[in-house]
Amino acid sequence: MKGNLFADACSSFDDATFVLFGVPFDGTSSFRTGSRWAPMEMRKASYNFETYNGDLDVDLVDVPVHDMGDIEAYCSVDDTLDAVYDVASGIVKAGKLPIMMGGEHSLTYPCVKACGKVGFVVMDAHHDLRQEYGGLRNNHACVSRHIIEDLADRYVSIGIRSGTKEEYEYVRNKGIMSFTANDVDAMGIDAVLRETEAYLRGCDRIYLSLDMDAIDPAYAPGLGTPEPFGMTPRQVREVIRRLAPKTVGFDVVEISPVYDHGVTAILGAKLIRDFIAAKWKSMQA
Amino acid sequence: MKGNLFADACSSFDDATFVLFGVPFDGTSSFRTGSRWAPMEMRKASYNFETYNGDLDVDLVDVPVHDMGDIEAYCSVDDTLDAVYDVASGIVKAGKLPIMMGGEHSLTYPCVKACGKVGFVVMDAHHDLRQEYGGLRNNHACVSRHIIEDLADRYVSIGIRSGTKEEYEYVRNKGIMSFTANDVDAMGIDAVLRETEAYLRGCDRIYLSLDMDAIDPAYAPGLGTPEPFGMTPRQVREVIRRLAPKTVGFDVVEISPVYDHGVTAILGAKLIRDFIAAKWKSMQA
Amino acid sequence: MKGNLFADACSSFDDATFVLFGVPFDGTSSFRTGSRWAPMEMRKASYNFETYNGDLDVDLVDVPVHDMGDIEAYCSVDDTLDAVYDVASGIVKAGKLPIMMGGEHSLTYPCVKACGKVGFVVMDAHHDLRQEYGGLRNNHACVSRHIIEDLADRYVSIGIRSGTKEEYEYVRNKGIMSFTANDVDAMGIDAVLRETEAYLRGCDRIYLSLDMDAIDPAYAPGLGTPEPFGMTPRQVREVIRRLAPKTVGFDVVEISPVYDHGVTAILGAKLIRDFIAAKWKSMQA
Amino acid sequence: MKGNLFADACSSFDDATFVLFGVPFDGTSSFRTGSRWAPMEMRKASYNFETYNGDLDVDLVDVPVHDMGDIEAYCSVDDTLDAVYDVASGIVKAGKLPIMMGGEHSLTYPCVKACGKVGFVVMDAHHDLRQEYGGLRNNHACVSRHIIEDLADRYVSIGIRSGTKEEYEYVRNKGIMSFTANDVDAMGIDAVLRETEAYLRGCDRIYLSLDMDAIDPAYAPGLGTPEPFGMTPRQVREVIRRLAPKTVGFDVVEISPVYDHGVTAILGAKLIRDFIAAKWKSMQA
Amino acid sequence: MKGNLFADACSSFDDATFVLFGVPFDGTSSFRTGSRWAPMEMRKASYNFETYNGDLDVDLVDVPVHDMGDIEAYCSVDDTLDAVYDVASGIVKAGKLPIMMGGEHSLTYPCVKACGKVGFVVMDAHHDLRQEYGGLRNNHACVSRHIIEDLADRYVSIGIRSGTKEEYEYVRNKGIMSFTANDVDAMGIDAVLRETEAYLRGCDRIYLSLDMDAIDPAYAPGLGTPEPFGMTPRQVREVIRRLAPKTVGFDVVEISPVYDHGVTAILGAKLIRDFIAAKWKSMQA
Amino acid sequence: MKGNLFADACSSFDDATFVLFGVPFDGTSSFRTGSRWAPMEMRKASYNFETYNGDLDVDLVDVPVHDMGDIEAYCSVDDTLDAVYDVASGIVKAGKLPIMMGGEHSLTYPCVKACGKVGFVVMDAHHDLRQEYGGLRNNHACVSRHIIEDLADRYVSIGIRSGTKEEYEYVRNKGIMSFTANDVDAMGIDAVLRETEAYLRGCDRIYLSLDMDAIDPAYAPGLGTPEPFGMTPRQVREVIRRLAPKTVGFDVVEISPVYDHGVTAILGAKLIRDFIAAKWKSMQA
Ligand SMILES: [Mn+2]
Ligand SMILES: [Mn+2]
Ligand SMILES: [Mn+2]
Ligand SMILES: [Mn+2]
Ligand SMILES: [Mn+2]
Ligand SMILES: [Mn+2]
Ligand SMILES: [Mn+2]
Ligand SMILES: [Mn+2]
Ligand SMILES: [Mn+2]
Ligand SMILES: [Mn+2]
Ligand SMILES: [Mn+2]
Ligand SMILES: [Mn+2]
Repeated sequence: MKGNLFADACSSFDDATFVLFGVPFDGTSSFRTGSRWAPMEMRKASYNFETYNGDLDVDLVDVPVHDMGDIEAYCSVDDTLDAVYDVASGIVKAGKLPIMMGGEHSLTYPCVKACGKVGFVVMDAHHDLRQEYGGLRNNHACVSRHIIEDLADRYVSIGIRSGTKEEYEYVRNKGIMSFTANDVDAMGIDAVLRETEAYLRGCDRIYLSLDMDAIDPAYAPGLGTPEPFGMTPRQVREVIRRLAPKTVGFDVVEISPVYDHGVTAILGAKLIRDFIAAKWKSMQA
Repeated sequence: MKGNLFADACSSFDDATFVLFGVPFDGTSSFRTGSRWAPMEMRKASYNFETYNGDLDVDLVDVPVHDMGDIEAYCSVDDTLDAVYDVASGIVKAGKLPIMMGGEHSLTYPCVKACGKVGFVVMDAHHDLRQEYGGLRNNHACVSRHIIEDLADRYVSIGIRSGTKEEYEYVRNKGIMSFTANDVDAMGIDAVLRETEAYLRGCDRIYLSLDMDAIDPAYAPGLGTPEPFGMTPRQVREVIRRLAPKTVGFDVVEISPVYDHGVTAILGAKLIRDFIAAKWKSMQA
Repeated sequence: MKGNLFADACSSFDDATFVLFGVPFDGTSSFRTGSRWAPMEMRKASYNFETYNGDLDVDLVDVPVHDMGDIEAYCSVDDTLDAVYDVASGIVKAGKLPIMMGGEHSLTYPCVKACGKVGFVVMDAHHDLRQEYGGLRNNHACVSRHIIEDLADRYVSIGIRSGTKEEYEYVRNKGIMSFTANDVDAMGIDAVLRETEAYLRGCDRIYLSLDMDAIDPAYAPGLGTPEPFGMTPRQVREVIRRLAPKTVGFDVVEISPVYDHGVTAILGAKLIRDFIAAKWKSMQA
Repeated sequence: MKGNLFADACSSFDDATFVLFGVPFDGTSSFRTGSRWAPMEMRKASYNFETYNGDLDVDLVDVPVHDMGDIEAYCSVDDTLDAVYDVASGIVKAGKLPIMMGGEHSLTYPCVKACGKVGFVVMDAHHDLRQEYGGLRNNHACVSRHIIEDLADRYVSIGIRSGTKEEYEYVRNKGIMSFTANDVDAMGIDAVLRETEAYLRGCDRIYLSLDMDAIDPAYAPGLGTPEPFGMTPRQVREVIRRLAPKTVGFDVVEISPVYDHGVTAILGAKLIRDFIAAKWKSMQA
Repeated sequence: MKGNLFADACSSFDDATFVLFGVPFDGTSSFRTGSRWAPMEMRKASYNFETYNGDLDVDLVDVPVHDMGDIEAYCSVDDTLDAVYDVASGIVKAGKLPIMMGGEHSLTYPCVKACGKVGFVVMDAHHDLRQEYGGLRNNHACVSRHIIEDLADRYVSIGIRSGTKEEYEYVRNKGIMSFTANDVDAMGIDAVLRETEAYLRGCDRIYLSLDMDAIDPAYAPGLGTPEPFGMTPRQVREVIRRLAPKTVGFDVVEISPVYDHGVTAILGAKLIRDFIAAKWKSMQA
Repeated sequence: MKGNLFADACSSFDDATFVLFGVPFDGTSSFRTGSRWAPMEMRKASYNFETYNGDLDVDLVDVPVHDMGDIEAYCSVDDTLDAVYDVASGIVKAGKLPIMMGGEHSLTYPCVKACGKVGFVVMDAHHDLRQEYGGLRNNHACVSRHIIEDLADRYVSIGIRSGTKEEYEYVRNKGIMSFTANDVDAMGIDAVLRETEAYLRGCDRIYLSLDMDAIDPAYAPGLGTPEPFGMTPRQVREVIRRLAPKTVGFDVVEISPVYDHGVTAILGAKLIRDFIAAKWKSMQA
């Protein structure tokens, strides 16, 4: 055990296919803060698991993963986003897949930007479609809006159950593909994914973002803004496994360890490990 | 944010359709106490949510809700129940719908009484059908019994999974309509509600009481007497939405914040907001 | 309430049919320790419940249960296992059914041994099929392996979702009956149990071990090694109720109260009470 | 370790000089409950310590101590007090020294009564001198009043910093010897003890009661009614060591483990161990 | 108990001498947030205490205190400060003494401003003398600087043990009266207060601000930025009691209940009650 | 903020004067485990503080400190100790001062060994003078014994208040300089340090080890084996500041974050920062 790095991230940067980094920033969080502590808690939690993934028959000791540690986070969200962009760009330019451990959801924007032209799939309880919030354009409550407008040619949200009237109308008016948690419950995750895959057919590069509050608070109590009636971990895992082959960038954000007794960070770390295994398996095929 | 009042409860008493009040009393609690702190934790939690309810297309900023704050609670359960009755009666007489935030389940009795002739629907893990407990008639473990005997012409319980042999026999002997959590799981909540609605057909005024321990401890760990194998929040929400149109009084009781990291109070606050939205929508139709 | 003994365990040893004992030992635990405190927390939690089991129509006040208190635990796992064996043997020889409250999973071995020739059914997230771990043969991560090799003529595991590549291969190569949590989710617990019962048809004595991490961390967060994507309490209860008639020894292990706010111990205590009621009912038939 | 009994309490009842018992009762607690869980937490905490007391050169393995476990506690405070009286009387009549682990402070009354004619010394933040409270004569807030009026020929309180105006006047009017926490801070504990010892000169049998809220919440956060500006553990220890030679009954009450991360129970267990060592040493002289 | 208002704050606004209000705002907090929840936790904690203050012989039931509840807090610190100013001014203009329950330290500025020309005495671990921080002039780390420059003709800080080199130099260069926690420990609080009183001789109106992190984390663990080696509660109480007669405005800020098990809020509430009693006593003389 | 490294540890290894490293190992812990998580919690806590130390007039941004991250820890204590020795030796050989963040106290042995011939000063509640414990020579309960016998020519312990009779006799028989916490309280830390300095006069290289349980649990609740009646943080700081000039190796061990709400890790991080500042200042003179 080497507590300040993710378990089994034993590769050098140069040899790595996957590069993890943490961003200890929660400066625009509104309700319950603390996601700045999440990268370290997910690292700690990563030692809970076996290296082998029995479902996928992948052993993480065979996968070249590097953990860069944490990026310097600043008081200012804009400065922090610039720093994230620089690091994520460096990873992408070196031909590696970046995995960001947040911190808050605003950090996703520079990661997506670094990945170039992508379809964007986000699991989230919240639309995050505000133009600005609390006077900040780069507030975590606006991240999807700016990604849609600036970066992504395709956008799908899954697990939604919170937003302003304006955000719901924006979705309706723009014809955005958005599956609520109720939809997932009613249709089944398989049907949701089939529609998603159909919509993304022409798109061979996906950025996948997991705002942990997509998941029901029973499974993920340690959140900044827990929203009842959420997705199950199995549903989220299915999304990750199915989309991994086309995914070129991934993140897990919005865990707040202050309100956790460990299980949210454990689930976050497990889903990162599942993503790595699923992507790696698809690359070996 | 105005932390000592429920979010979006911006109406004056006179203008309000819904009137919230808290009762910080847990004097007869037997296993784990602390529900006296629940009204304030639900208020705090209420700021976690958007004002808009996307499922129901209701924005709470448009709904006239007033929060009276907490009622004075006394050492004696009987004195406290008298105080609750006075307040609830005042609300009912003013033509408004009372929503009580407990506190323990014994507090439901005076609220029902204030509402006059009603059918009583309760979600609870426990029968609460004892004649007395610990020497007290008004113990929280007796509330359903006295409501059946004194106040309600119709009675339905949903989510039951705990009681004495005598309580189970009382249900059987009296032909009481009681759905266990096993029934809900086996039949589905829709079938349960269809039977409930049929039974209540002639009754156009319902009092709906939510003892939060109806819900599984995974979703609601912060309880006085958590009982495994419970209902899901979706099932509870379905009951609330379906019965809201006929409901004339509502309460959420038995949350114990001492054993919570926030999610139980958040769920309680969310269900209150859902009740208000569903009832309001039915009133606009 | 008599807090240092299990609720309703009012029988003397001599009169008892069921004999409970605790083993406050977690000496080989690897990730998060604390299961040494679990026996007392389950006792404390046992006072949360009514004596009557409405599903099974059994009142625990009518069942002769004795709680011996805790066994002396030593620094050395081997010494502790010897002590457990002595106690469990004494119970079995006296014609009573032993129920062990762990403590860690390694403690199951001497209990099984004390029960003589049995089929062994274990609910666990982990294979526990290592030959040794951390230099210790009697590590909790090895318990199933040694039971298969030394003690049980039949072995079934349910709820599995973690292991080394070698453990998965061992299962495959040996043709071991092992249902993953994914299997349970896909097949339903009823189908799993029908296959299990068919396999155990010739075997009329079963030892049933419940490593609480078989259960999803949403329901059981207070664990040494929580593993997402687990079984539900209902599925576990179904296993217990269905196998109880043939069961001659039972244990609940690996709860770590340090990471709990009470619900894991409450669930463990409830499942022990359910086992006693189900077994007792089958004995009365 | 044998988690459900106090560490090093290895003697049989018959051979014991000291007899420990727990009373899991907090039925009249007013602010924060939970002292019912304290006996088990003090037992758990007792395993934190070496058997040897270096200050006093006493090894607890040489001292005959018996732990009877917990007394049955009832819903009714009066029934519980009767049960405590029976047990404590049995211990006293057998010529042994009773040590009660509460539970709430009302439990002290029957212990004092069982000890016969004694001087009563209590460390407490609160006067506990009400005639009745919440309609109950045997409320924890009344214990000192009834002991003064019914049982003790001499009474000294140390650490006081809370009471009604009536309680302060009662002390003044009756000329009761009462040292506030301010007095202890200003005079030093040595001066307080010299005055106490002078007052108790003619009295060779003392009952010593430690309401843990005598101690400052910094050292003892896990309390029902924490009161700032309290005594230090060193001051409390000094009282215990100095009065132990004449003490014939001892208790530690009012710890509420729900609000503790362990240190309050650890301190309570340590003070019990210190009392035993100090008393034993005086008996060997 | 009326949980959403401070205990014994039974007076109407018009009749009150003291007016309490809470400000649930922590928007500029840097390390650990959560002081937004402090007003409600101090209210809750206020029910822990007797109405009577035995040291000062004042019974709070005789003192006209009003609790206005919480002020609306906004996302923007500037908007929130404006709202606080409006409320505090209203109280001062009505001839009453405002007591603000924060919330973060930046909220003190508008309270001081509302009180007009005052000497400012602050207990704090931190200088709070930055010109701006994180791009915000009204950051909590700047509050003392702006009060010195804009509002107070006299300034004294007590308990200091943290600052930048620039802040320490500013103190030295400006000849500011500042007592470090080391000074308090070395000189004794009495000597500190004598120097303070001498310096404030000509000033008959003092605003007293208590940043709870002035106190050692042993006594006040629930803080945004706990700083070891702090003041004791007795020292803080002495400052409050001695300065109360001249004090015209008071606040308690920076408690973060998220990191508390209650004792910090209890201490904060107690110090508010002590301030009220001491001020009231001086007014009766 | 760069959460996985100690704050202000901005130097490269080559440029550094001080080299920090963590060892996430608690394999031999006996009562409450969790010190494996302490390095990361102290790093997290280090961001709580200003870079400037006002007492010593040292700004940590001017001090060349490097944080190597965590050392790989193994299941086996012996393997882990070898790894620690290798790393510590590398630091010492490179002419830098090693600062180890434990993990448990056994880890001190290889650090002392790496420093060569030193006088050893340890602050600890426990003698740690056993020859072996739990069958392990390198148990944390034996570290001082082996350092005395194998490595240190001078040995002083401060803060002692727990040990076996044999350990106390060993101290007496060997004429070991050992100050109990009672001694520190009675003599004052200054007198203790004068005796210590006199004894160490001929020794110009000291290794200083801080077992955090030397400190009273009020200030340091998050410990493996909290022992009441301990030293104050001021006393510990005085030892560190006075001995820093001669100190060539330093460590902080035995914090258990599982039982902490942050203040113990904050105090540990602060004391490390104080040591660095004091040592650096002495080097500049
Ligand atoms: Mn989001
Ligand atoms: Mn979200
Ligand atoms: Mn109920
Ligand atoms: Mn219930
Ligand atoms: Mn297992
Ligand atoms: Mn397992
Ligand atoms: Mn008392
Ligand atoms: Mn008391
Ligand atoms: Mn401040
Ligand atoms: Mn401050
Ligand atoms: Mn040590
Ligand atoms: Mn130690």
